[in-house]
Amino acid sequence: MAALAETASTKIAKDAKQAFEASQLVQASDRITALHGIKAELEALKSDIQNANRVDLEAAQKDVAAGRLSESLLKRLDLFKGDKWDAMLQGISDVASLPDPTGNVSYASELDDNLELYRVSCPIGVLLVIFEARPEVVINIAALAIKSGNAAILKGGKESNNTTALLAQAVRNALAKTSLPENYIQTIQTREEVSSLLALDQYIDLVIPRGSNALVRNIQNNTRIPVMGHADGLCSVYLDESADVEKAVRVAVDSKIDYPAACNSEETLIIHHSLLNTIWPKVAKALLKAGVELQCDSSSLTALSQISPPLPNLSNLVKPSTESSYTTEHLSLTLSVLTVASLSAAIAHINAHSSHHTDSIVTESESAATTFVRGVDSAGTFVNASTRFADGFRYGFGTEVGISTGRIHARGPVGLEGLVTYKYVMRSKGEKGHIVGEFGTGEGKKSYKHQKIDAQKLPF
Amino acid sequence: MAALAETASTKIAKDAKQAFEASQLVQASDRITALHGIKAELEALKSDIQNANRVDLEAAQKDVAAGRLSESLLKRLDLFKGDKWDAMLQGISDVASLPDPTGNVSYASELDDNLELYRVSCPIGVLLVIFEARPEVVINIAALAIKSGNAAILKGGKESNNTTALLAQAVRNALAKTSLPENYIQTIQTREEVSSLLALDQYIDLVIPRGSNALVRNIQNNTRIPVMGHADGLCSVYLDESADVEKAVRVAVDSKIDYPAACNSEETLIIHHSLLNTIWPKVAKALLKAGVELQCDSSSLTALSQISPPLPNLSNLVKPSTESSYTTEHLSLTLSVLTVASLSAAIAHINAHSSHHTDSIVTESESAATTFVRGVDSAGTFVNASTRFADGFRYGFGTEVGISTGRIHARGPVGLEGLVTYKYVMRSKGEKGHIVGEFGTGEGKKSYKHQKIDAQKLPF
Repeated sequence: MAALAETASTKIAKDAKQAFEASQLVQASDRITALHGIKAELEALKSDIQNANRVDLEAAQKDVAAGRLSESLLKRLDLFKGDKWDAMLQGISDVASLPDPTGNVSYASELDDNLELYRVSCPIGVLLVIFEARPEVVINIAALAIKSGNAAILKGGKESNNTTALLAQAVRNALAKTSLPENYIQTIQTREEVSSLLALDQYIDLVIPRGSNALVRNIQNNTRIPVMGHADGLCSVYLDESADVEKAVRVAVDSKIDYPAACNSEETLIIHHSLLNTIWPKVAKALLKAGVELQCDSSSLTALSQISPPLPNLSNLVKPSTESSYTTEHLSLTLSVLTVASLSAAIAHINAHSSHHTDSIVTESESAATTFVRGVDSAGTFVNASTRFADGFRYGFGTEVGISTGRIHARGPVGLEGLVTYKYVMRSKGEKGHIVGEFGTGEGKKSYKHQKIDAQKLPF
Repeated sequence: MAALAETASTKIAKDAKQAFEASQLVQASDRITALHGIKAELEALKSDIQNANRVDLEAAQKDVAAGRLSESLLKRLDLFKGDKWDAMLQGISDVASLPDPTGNVSYASELDDNLELYRVSCPIGVLLVIFEARPEVVINIAALAIKSGNAAILKGGKESNNTTALLAQAVRNALAKTSLPENYIQTIQTREEVSSLLALDQYIDLVIPRGSNALVRNIQNNTRIPVMGHADGLCSVYLDESADVEKAVRVAVDSKIDYPAACNSEETLIIHHSLLNTIWPKVAKALLKAGVELQCDSSSLTALSQISPPLPNLSNLVKPSTESSYTTEHLSLTLSVLTVASLSAAIAHINAHSSHHTDSIVTESESAATTFVRGVDSAGTFVNASTRFADGFRYGFGTEVGISTGRIHARGPVGLEGLVTYKYVMRSKGEKGHIVGEFGTGEGKKSYKHQKIDAQKLPF
């Protein structure tokens, strides 16, 4: 067969797939050894990495001064700010010590005497992970990929190219000392490479974008490869007819102000109309005190304007909402407020407007709680709890690969489980092996036994 | 907001999404009632459906006579052939009696005193199912969708339009007598509608194509909505160095001849070179006796041609293979044969050429079996068992939604589990509700408890 001309990206993708296939027989213990090796290499390269990070930061500072880069991006670029470096190293150890997500049996059945079927978790294949600014993500993702047995191709922000090049070097150095293939974790640097890779669905199995909405949307619109992530986090809190006032204030405020830029922060507060002159003023007062701008529909606005003496900050922070308020992810101390006539109207509004990320009800009614958590079609449906709890670490996964607003494969905060799939392993121990032709309804034919086997791991 | 002009397809998709959302509070018992209702309506409409099916068959017969339609498609169109009708009705009862795939808790954790997290299975949303010829698929899929709580839009082959229109009528009649929304199951008739719907990823959550490779590929190439299915079933059997001769013959033959047109039938037989003059002639003899054409590489061909007296059928059924033999899904009594020097060469060939559906090794070696089932990157990896076992009913799922060669969400034969996703439900029973701001590392802050809860169902 004539050798086809291969673009550089095709070679990267093919190499990754081959590395993945070659790695299938590597033991979990070797993968853990690789993780500890990466930590050691990083420690050895620390001063070089500090220098590289300084170069990136200085270039970025010039871009900020020239208005080409945001201040917040600059902050994320600094790998040695606070305990970031140590936290990154600790993260590797933490991932190393998590339970192995592969090799776990989730279904096992004896189909016939001596014919056993096992559904066992295994890595997905080749991951393409695209992120911005924060250089430590290279190490986070490399650790998660290695732990879960996936090969990965990583693309960081161009602002951190000098830093990530050295981080990637540390990973390569460590892998070279193990039985894992050298192309197991590769890094790329340009958007053009990303564009080419997004077309290679025969080699790449999952794309994980971590960054701005624009980044995620752009990737979702330009690939047939499955994408795991969320473009928007438009979360709501609904104050039900039977809400407790203290819970209403605490949940509405915490969901908004704990970290307004996070995808799991509250963007819309929905109020049952019966609360307009009871609980709503107290909630509004607490939000205004915290400096939250309220974009109110007419009912909730009227209720606040009738209060005497006027609430502090009323004149500067309370504004009428527009249609677009309820489809906007503010990501700041701004909150859209809507009044509804019923629980079912609240659920209908959320299903039509939220990003299906996380929504919370404040209620003392068991039946309202049940209706809300079943009726709201979101990855997280909460009762009397802040939307900010929607997070892999808080859920107890030990790590977070990302948060998915897709419905297929993984939904909500995703731990290591989101990086594995499964395969079916069948073994005949019969004297003559097993063939399908012996089963059926005719004379002398066998029937399937389908008897559950208790197994956590493959027995061979 | 100005009303946007809506195409008919957009209305169908929106109606389906609304029907899905409205159905979230319907009890599982109501869904079972709906299934029994469909069965009763079908029985009531039987003679009308027979007439409609006759009209479709007569039109199709003309198309066959004119060479516009294949004989095999005609056969699949006949809803009253053999026990097809009764089997379809029985299928509804079978699905009704399967365990409910929704509402099952797969992860539950107490994050803090009185703060509980549950991961609970729930329907995916709106399914778009596209199939060909066989009209009974309308009923199969409607039953699966209703049982799993998903809304569905169904498109059958145009040859069966008269039959499927009445089957759909029976479904609508039955739904009208339940609490399920009338648009829960919709049917469409044209390819143009399918094309429009494939663009509506805001309303449609999963596409399930059931039909020819061409159909599946065309859909995969024309939508951003996740697609569950398989275009190819290129399965292999590998006869290892330590294969037992009887198992080799039985598995190689059954995998090929039990049902050659099935996606799980063997298309390539891979032989360890040490077997060329021992086991291979016996396997070849059995295959030739069954009328299987063998497309052989030079080693396996030479081995057969040296046998004296010549094997029966040698001259007419044994041919040299070409490069394309090993990437062809024959779907007939044709088998490609390849000789390899080692187990690892066999694994590499399978990973590079198979469709990652199902591959089987024949071996007496425990270590070869282990290496094969781990090293082969397919949905099914079997030991001493026919590839034909790869099937939802044989696996014990009670039903089969389809077979997936994708790695995301569902892989291999897919039962009702493939039609559900999950959501996270969190409930605070704390006196003041729960907020994130109280957790952390500072003074007076709380730590997460992450204590496993034993729960199969939501407690509220």
